[in-house]
Amino acid sequence: MDIKRPVVTLITDFGTADGYVGAMKGVLLSICPQVWPVDITHDIPRHDVYRAAFSLSNAAPLFPAGTTHLVVVDPGVGTMRRPLGVRAGGMNYVGPDNGVLSLVLRGRSEQKVVALENEAYHHSPRLGDAASHTFHGRDIFSPAAAHLAAGVALTELGPQLTDWISLSFPTLTLRSPHELVGEVLYLDRFGNAVTNIGVLEWTGHDLQLIPAFARGEEAPIVLSGAAAVACREHLLPLHRTYGEVSPGAPLALVGSSGLLEIAVREDSAGVCLGLRPGDPVVLTGRKRN
Amino acid sequence: MDIKRPVVTLITDFGTADGYVGAMKGVLLSICPQVWPVDITHDIPRHDVYRAAFSLSNAAPLFPAGTTHLVVVDPGVGTMRRPLGVRAGGMNYVGPDNGVLSLVLRGRSEQKVVALENEAYHHSPRLGDAASHTFHGRDIFSPAAAHLAAGVALTELGPQLTDWISLSFPTLTLRSPHELVGEVLYLDRFGNAVTNIGVLEWTGHDLQLIPAFARGEEAPIVLSGAAAVACREHLLPLHRTYGEVSPGAPLALVGSSGLLEIAVREDSAGVCLGLRPGDPVVLTGRKRN
Amino acid sequence: MDIKRPVVTLITDFGTADGYVGAMKGVLLSICPQVWPVDITHDIPRHDVYRAAFSLSNAAPLFPAGTTHLVVVDPGVGTMRRPLGVRAGGMNYVGPDNGVLSLVLRGRSEQKVVALENEAYHHSPRLGDAASHTFHGRDIFSPAAAHLAAGVALTELGPQLTDWISLSFPTLTLRSPHELVGEVLYLDRFGNAVTNIGVLEWTGHDLQLIPAFARGEEAPIVLSGAAAVACREHLLPLHRTYGEVSPGAPLALVGSSGLLEIAVREDSAGVCLGLRPGDPVVLTGRKRN
Repeated sequence: MDIKRPVVTLITDFGTADGYVGAMKGVLLSICPQVWPVDITHDIPRHDVYRAAFSLSNAAPLFPAGTTHLVVVDPGVGTMRRPLGVRAGGMNYVGPDNGVLSLVLRGRSEQKVVALENEAYHHSPRLGDAASHTFHGRDIFSPAAAHLAAGVALTELGPQLTDWISLSFPTLTLRSPHELVGEVLYLDRFGNAVTNIGVLEWTGHDLQLIPAFARGEEAPIVLSGAAAVACREHLLPLHRTYGEVSPGAPLALVGSSGLLEIAVREDSAGVCLGLRPGDPVVLTGRKRN
Repeated sequence: MDIKRPVVTLITDFGTADGYVGAMKGVLLSICPQVWPVDITHDIPRHDVYRAAFSLSNAAPLFPAGTTHLVVVDPGVGTMRRPLGVRAGGMNYVGPDNGVLSLVLRGRSEQKVVALENEAYHHSPRLGDAASHTFHGRDIFSPAAAHLAAGVALTELGPQLTDWISLSFPTLTLRSPHELVGEVLYLDRFGNAVTNIGVLEWTGHDLQLIPAFARGEEAPIVLSGAAAVACREHLLPLHRTYGEVSPGAPLALVGSSGLLEIAVREDSAGVCLGLRPGDPVVLTGRKRN
Repeated sequence: MDIKRPVVTLITDFGTADGYVGAMKGVLLSICPQVWPVDITHDIPRHDVYRAAFSLSNAAPLFPAGTTHLVVVDPGVGTMRRPLGVRAGGMNYVGPDNGVLSLVLRGRSEQKVVALENEAYHHSPRLGDAASHTFHGRDIFSPAAAHLAAGVALTELGPQLTDWISLSFPTLTLRSPHELVGEVLYLDRFGNAVTNIGVLEWTGHDLQLIPAFARGEEAPIVLSGAAAVACREHLLPLHRTYGEVSPGAPLALVGSSGLLEIAVREDSAGVCLGLRPGDPVVLTGRKRN
């Protein structure tokens, strides 16, 4: 057990000005004074479950084993959607059952998921004896995270589940032996267009593509001599890094999260190339078997 | 004493880009290396003492005893307004005497307040021998918070006071035995309109209202069968939670801080209903004695 | 050595929503579980090396000895610009060789600088065996900061350097014995216009000016009876603090970082006076020898 100085990371769409995140940190520290709250972000666009799922998947795997990740982007608070607690890959996850945890859990064989229904582990605000109906971040999710961080067994927090909601992602299509079609998932803070084309390895000549987002392709797809990416009317050269083109020039590259990105050096691909989420992206190469 | 790992929370309107908050954290850690700075927010709208007071009152009560809360929203820096240190309810508070601490102190019987005048506990920036005239966050408030966190007695920091500034809030009016009139205090990040109508308990049938913001009503007001809230031309049903109406539909509900709120499910009441701070809100029910 | 509970501060232009900063914190904690990440800011305007350098210089000197400061504002990631590790004034600094560290190092006689080239201290993301080409914050700078915080010697991280890039600043000009000409460097969050006129001490009558940003003036310049600052068509009185003028009135004053600032009490000098970076500022007094 790694509970001596347990880290709890936080991802919300609350902003910070209203003190809601502060309230969550207070609950964490009141339940488990050793907890160490580490902000990932509170600036997820409101109710953007996909963006939160990506933030989590960019950051969570880098944390040490034993970390608890607390995610509250929860448009369905107060409805029947279930609050989840998860143990997977040596880490804990807590968040609503709306798919926000599904990206980071994808492909993990050993995972245990519970519904956080045991009221003994909820927080009771001053107004009554039960958790609030509007702020599960404070009353259900933070207490669960604090208890997990303190070493309480996941199965104490509620009954085990075998099904939960997964985000659906746009699938990749192999249009021809040398044309793979994906799309722009989102634009990051720098205006880079992150696509759903996941790259396992790029040797500079061969691209080995993860079939994670592809349907019906179980083995990695290898595109040999992959060299160009088309998006809207733009044809973009594939490079290793921004520095290989001039400032202001567009390029495609494998981003830090392993997804193919379209970027403009020292500028915004979103603005300069007029890209938006959902735009089709065509990667051209030659399929190798 | 709970000073082994003392938490100091921070609320400012500084933003973070200029490094001013970083400077405050540096002073905290230089004076007391055990201090654990926990951000509540640095995104209070500039000089908005009311919003800061609400953030503090949403978050502070959830923290464990012994926490020190540091609030620097200080339009009067460099004027005669006094810097305050407070001990109340087992916690410490530090901030300017402009009302920002008054909401969280309201109704506390045991509180001790001092003016932070003892220069031995100020920080002297490199430019001279006294605290700066423009950055008391760094030079007076952070040092006071660090010293309190380190276990220095409050009364060491300056002379005790018996008066300080309280924020004035719009008062509630019982216009008829079944009509309570309050108003919108502010719009939160989600566009929910938070009102000054404080609710002690809502059974689904009876609303028991805290007279905290009311004048001349010392006992709780009970409205039986309270069912509707009017604001501008809108008449809104009272519900327990967002999920009881369809996405896009407006409602009134008791928010997580115990105040009546007007919301639109998965959207902004501020935008959809055109609400603004100061708008009158009428809660209709039947007064019970 | 002060490595028991080593603080690592973070300054980036990443924002937080994409999880990139979260990934850096994960790497820090995975390499050195004792590391204590303290956010200074992630809201530096994109690629604004100057603003990051000022944030760092406002905040870093206040931290205790032994702190490691991690700065990733890095428009040249993936180009030949070198990643730097620095030991100076009892603190560690890590960041790209683009001048972002140069302001805080200015005038320090004892400093040791290395290029972070030892790959044994890089982070290898899942995609391959080497650091990424696009996210040195995660793969080179955070690991270096974590290793320094853990007590690894600076010289372990790469070969020592004797030259690095310094930011160039607009220089001060003594236009006449009583007229010093500088300029607006940037507008802070409050709309205060921070100038390049550094003040060593202001007695209320004499201004002693640091020649830090001046060319050819090695000794401090003393302006006696300095009383007025001109910028654009405005003539501003010099005061100790905002409170000495009425709300809404403009003034000049020595800001908390020791630089002359132009402000409007409780409002924005940027907006009210139409000031912008680069605007000339003339300080009028009488030079004393």
